[in-house]
Amino acid sequence: MSAKIKVGIVGDGYTAEELVRLLAGHPEAEVIAITSLFNIGRDFAAVFPNLLRYTEVICESMELTSFIGRCDAIFVALPHGQAVPVVKEAVAQNKKVIDLGADFRFKQVEVYEEWYGVKHEAPELLEEVVYGIPELYGAQVRQARIVANPGCYPTSAILGMAPVLKAGLVDIRTLIVDSKSGVSGAGRTPGMHNLFCEVNENVKAYNVATHRHGPEIEQVYSWLAGAEATLTFTPHLIPMSRGILSTIYASLTRPVTQTELQALYEDFYRDCFFIRVLPEGQLPMTRAVYTTNHCDIGLVIDPRNGRLVVVSAIDNLVKGASGQAIQNLNLMCGLKETCGLKAAGLLP
Amino acid sequence: MSAKIKVGIVGDGYTAEELVRLLAGHPEAEVIAITSLFNIGRDFAAVFPNLLRYTEVICESMELTSFIGRCDAIFVALPHGQAVPVVKEAVAQNKKVIDLGADFRFKQVEVYEEWYGVKHEAPELLEEVVYGIPELYGAQVRQARIVANPGCYPTSAILGMAPVLKAGLVDIRTLIVDSKSGVSGAGRTPGMHNLFCEVNENVKAYNVATHRHGPEIEQVYSWLAGAEATLTFTPHLIPMSRGILSTIYASLTRPVTQTELQALYEDFYRDCFFIRVLPEGQLPMTRAVYTTNHCDIGLVIDPRNGRLVVVSAIDNLVKGASGQAIQNLNLMCGLKETCGLKAAGLLP
Amino acid sequence: MSAKIKVGIVGDGYTAEELVRLLAGHPEAEVIAITSLFNIGRDFAAVFPNLLRYTEVICESMELTSFIGRCDAIFVALPHGQAVPVVKEAVAQNKKVIDLGADFRFKQVEVYEEWYGVKHEAPELLEEVVYGIPELYGAQVRQARIVANPGCYPTSAILGMAPVLKAGLVDIRTLIVDSKSGVSGAGRTPGMHNLFCEVNENVKAYNVATHRHGPEIEQVYSWLAGAEATLTFTPHLIPMSRGILSTIYASLTRPVTQTELQALYEDFYRDCFFIRVLPEGQLPMTRAVYTTNHCDIGLVIDPRNGRLVVVSAIDNLVKGASGQAIQNLNLMCGLKETCGLKAAGLLP
Amino acid sequence: MSAKIKVGIVGDGYTAEELVRLLAGHPEAEVIAITSLFNIGRDFAAVFPNLLRYTEVICESMELTSFIGRCDAIFVALPHGQAVPVVKEAVAQNKKVIDLGADFRFKQVEVYEEWYGVKHEAPELLEEVVYGIPELYGAQVRQARIVANPGCYPTSAILGMAPVLKAGLVDIRTLIVDSKSGVSGAGRTPGMHNLFCEVNENVKAYNVATHRHGPEIEQVYSWLAGAEATLTFTPHLIPMSRGILSTIYASLTRPVTQTELQALYEDFYRDCFFIRVLPEGQLPMTRAVYTTNHCDIGLVIDPRNGRLVVVSAIDNLVKGASGQAIQNLNLMCGLKETCGLKAAGLLP
Repeated sequence: MSAKIKVGIVGDGYTAEELVRLLAGHPEAEVIAITSLFNIGRDFAAVFPNLLRYTEVICESMELTSFIGRCDAIFVALPHGQAVPVVKEAVAQNKKVIDLGADFRFKQVEVYEEWYGVKHEAPELLEEVVYGIPELYGAQVRQARIVANPGCYPTSAILGMAPVLKAGLVDIRTLIVDSKSGVSGAGRTPGMHNLFCEVNENVKAYNVATHRHGPEIEQVYSWLAGAEATLTFTPHLIPMSRGILSTIYASLTRPVTQTELQALYEDFYRDCFFIRVLPEGQLPMTRAVYTTNHCDIGLVIDPRNGRLVVVSAIDNLVKGASGQAIQNLNLMCGLKETCGLKAAGLLP
Repeated sequence: MSAKIKVGIVGDGYTAEELVRLLAGHPEAEVIAITSLFNIGRDFAAVFPNLLRYTEVICESMELTSFIGRCDAIFVALPHGQAVPVVKEAVAQNKKVIDLGADFRFKQVEVYEEWYGVKHEAPELLEEVVYGIPELYGAQVRQARIVANPGCYPTSAILGMAPVLKAGLVDIRTLIVDSKSGVSGAGRTPGMHNLFCEVNENVKAYNVATHRHGPEIEQVYSWLAGAEATLTFTPHLIPMSRGILSTIYASLTRPVTQTELQALYEDFYRDCFFIRVLPEGQLPMTRAVYTTNHCDIGLVIDPRNGRLVVVSAIDNLVKGASGQAIQNLNLMCGLKETCGLKAAGLLP
Repeated sequence: MSAKIKVGIVGDGYTAEELVRLLAGHPEAEVIAITSLFNIGRDFAAVFPNLLRYTEVICESMELTSFIGRCDAIFVALPHGQAVPVVKEAVAQNKKVIDLGADFRFKQVEVYEEWYGVKHEAPELLEEVVYGIPELYGAQVRQARIVANPGCYPTSAILGMAPVLKAGLVDIRTLIVDSKSGVSGAGRTPGMHNLFCEVNENVKAYNVATHRHGPEIEQVYSWLAGAEATLTFTPHLIPMSRGILSTIYASLTRPVTQTELQALYEDFYRDCFFIRVLPEGQLPMTRAVYTTNHCDIGLVIDPRNGRLVVVSAIDNLVKGASGQAIQNLNLMCGLKETCGLKAAGLLP
Repeated sequence: MSAKIKVGIVGDGYTAEELVRLLAGHPEAEVIAITSLFNIGRDFAAVFPNLLRYTEVICESMELTSFIGRCDAIFVALPHGQAVPVVKEAVAQNKKVIDLGADFRFKQVEVYEEWYGVKHEAPELLEEVVYGIPELYGAQVRQARIVANPGCYPTSAILGMAPVLKAGLVDIRTLIVDSKSGVSGAGRTPGMHNLFCEVNENVKAYNVATHRHGPEIEQVYSWLAGAEATLTFTPHLIPMSRGILSTIYASLTRPVTQTELQALYEDFYRDCFFIRVLPEGQLPMTRAVYTTNHCDIGLVIDPRNGRLVVVSAIDNLVKGASGQAIQNLNLMCGLKETCGLKAAGLLP
């Protein structure tokens, strides 16, 4: 057997955990190193006891040059603003690198700097970066050195609308994305916003019209439409651990039948194992994609006002983060995109 | 002390339970009788053990004439299509009656018959019925014999938009109501849709553009706007017991400042104890109104596209059902609307 | 109307919030001041938005002498080790004081110091302190200047076993208390242990045989039995916000019939409004006492091995903390113990 | 590649769903047929939309002879009292059969008939049946034609105590099993007991000292101890979908050190991949075994009274049902017990 791809992970939060969990079942890749700030010297399986018997890796401090030297591919799972040194060193050592944060997602550096409030330290790299949604940009991902893994909300919003945006079927001034997310999207750093007693039996909207994933969605919607799209984006926090359901509204530019719409989507995603366009009359729910790399899409036309309603569901930690990152890795390494990622959802 | 108002309840589901729970603390009314189909002869406090020591009422079978004869006011908490005989008898005996179901909510009988798929057996009563949102129609409620208590989703949607609809500030062709509801809205009759394991850790949209509360909202939006409004209404089921959060989108008809908007709402609801217009920058969450008759409203303008986003939160069983019904009873009986209903929410 | 009792609260966590929520409906007492460390100058109703329109109090820094000077009664809701100065000053100013923490719960200062790992700064006060379970020590509470409000687990464990311990019906070497608690018992300070994603869909035991509430239960069990009782105490954390269910095991010292057992409990708690001994064959659940000051108790004899199983349910924030504290205040002030505390539970 | 083992499943509830989910990733077996009562003719992936793209099987009505004729191995996932005809026909056709229900779990037919209230229709088969806990009875499972898959509670209780029972270290008159289960254990048939709003934010004990898993645990405890053990068994329902945590109490027959105890367990389970004996000071939680076939075990000695407390955690649908059934199938077919079953738990 040929050697497995040696994977290093920078960071030790929920997305790092998911990378390790998913890669434990990957036939062609293995996690050989994980860096940490607060768990240095601890077994990663002690930090996340679900991983006992599935990883022997011990968290280490970041020694950038040697860390990257030992790996074939690097996943960066850090808060925004911290990925540049890792990505630069990975490029310098000619290693593949996938950033799960926001630092390389924008083509226009000013948009990034305005919304994230930090100066970008490596704008010269942005041009070659590939925005890693394999179903849309798979060919480019195969050639990429640097992949910017999309945000969780954008993944659900973009996959839900790509076919109609490309087909020019929706009025790009009428786009509204109303998303409902589980709490794991808020990360593992304790705060009032992710405490059980504050979140349980509660639903709220937050950062209405000001969330940073808004411009990220707009960027890709504009690419797909070939014109500048604007949208209203409203994220909501709901009392569950995993999952994003996005309900997306847009006015149709011309009358469309349900049959035509279904055919458009099925055709668009014909070769995409992870995208499941649901039959007419069926709507997605997050449980059907729980723990998986799938995105389920349901389509409704409101005939009384010519409005399209698209509902898409993903697991925010898998297709919305770590699963999609591995899907990108697969393509960058010449593997099938599904390698190590096929798994049915969890119900109940 | 003068005698209390004698209240009878028809039905034994969650809204009946909430009526009993809330009226247990009401200084001027008391529940003297409850009818049931399946619990006849059982203590109501055995059906709902939380009520032990708060009610002595025993569920009885429905003997319409004598039941209504013993009561001063009747709450009807039955599935739609079953309220007419009770309401007719109450009117015949000159008793006040509040229907918590859908049978008397529509002024146009054909809309009711189309959406509910049943023939209305007493269309002649519809004209005098008052649609019971006290904050909007309190003067009429005070004079009413029959009040149609609004649906849970409509309550949140209508209170959230009334000020701007009345002021003509929103384009009534652009209305979208995206609502998130706890599971108690699905009632207490066991089915696959309200099983713990099917609902927990799950979010889904359902009845998109076809839910029966859609035309109910449209009816009142049209009254408020003075012109026929259409909307897209998308209900979602989320993993919690109580609460509805409605996120409502509409294009502004002219530029409005946040300050102007806040003032409009605060003014509109100045004398309404149960409506809390949140200060600029603050958004509602269902926990803040949990178990209460309050409706919290937050306001956001998306400046990049001239769209208004209103977020409103209620407890679907209280302001969305039994609490509002008691608020209506209070007005019909000449009491203060807040009588027996003041209570802070539950957090945690 | 005579003036209300002026209440001051030291602390701004969940038990402070519950005191304010419950006292908002109290006819004879009102909260006039709350101290805080981190929210000084903020409306308490901004810290807890559920309280909007139910309190006008603004959080203040602690100026001990003047704070206590303005109040008739003080609730101390601080972490252990911090209550002594407040209690001393309250005593000096001849004000009633109720400590919701652990500092005054133990008669033997060495037990406190061993289990809490701190030196007690006012052991001379311990003798006069009354351990505030009104159903057992109500007469003393009426005379008390200082009440130590019991821990949440001890409240459920003690009320569940008091009748059989007093009657000598159980072997005090065989006591096992297996308790299941909601997450609010872990407080509002963010940490890994009370994060939504760590607690949701999870159950675990913690501090087995080493939890500080163990010796507190033992102390009172010993008082009740008139001999030194030992027990094994196992707390568990379960995915809900409120509620404690304690399942308590002990070998019977002689054969007892179910009828005899029921009569013993009903007799023991005959005049206790808040204790509901459930009829034979019925078992408690936390929902039936949710948000209330009740304790529900169910009794089972395992006939095959002569073992008694008692199940008791409380709301940890009400009967397990703030509600019981107000019940104690009522007695200390010569009011009925139920004053302001009658409220049916929440289901759903 | 040699042909896969052809698996047939009788039943379409949650355990059937889990069999299909787990076998979708099994390299040596495949589900070729599923029988149903109410979903005949429907895609199984329409009944459970999480399985879309993971099974093509269509639910069929039960034609016993031909159904079994097409399969190599049969899983029976029916309510108790219904398995006998299927098992008999499987034996007649010389096929391997694993019953996930209770009909073949008891060696003494009178115990079964007393606790389940039905007459056993094939007592002559009981002797050859193997009780399928591979970690204890793996050698017999390898030779078995019929395996009785253990109950969910018994699996957790038995694995937790086997080492000390075999070693004679605990007094078998002092055994208490206090178990906490997620709601999926209550099955998928809608009823008041498994409704979201009745279970959410609630914990209760049920069937105290009368649950049918009590005698099942006693049977195996007695086998292990070599003497008749009795126990008190208390199941609890807690608000989560999956998982059982059992807290087990017993008096030690002689003083034992923690080190000795750890060594005993580690030694006993040395070759058992799915049993993870946690290091001293660490306690199990259900999340660490969520979705997996693992059983985590933690050990505590209460030094003040010589009592042992064992905590064990499983996923009730995997190690407590379908995963263990596949583990048994693996052994019956000469495969490694871990075949197709290695997967890390889910956190968050």
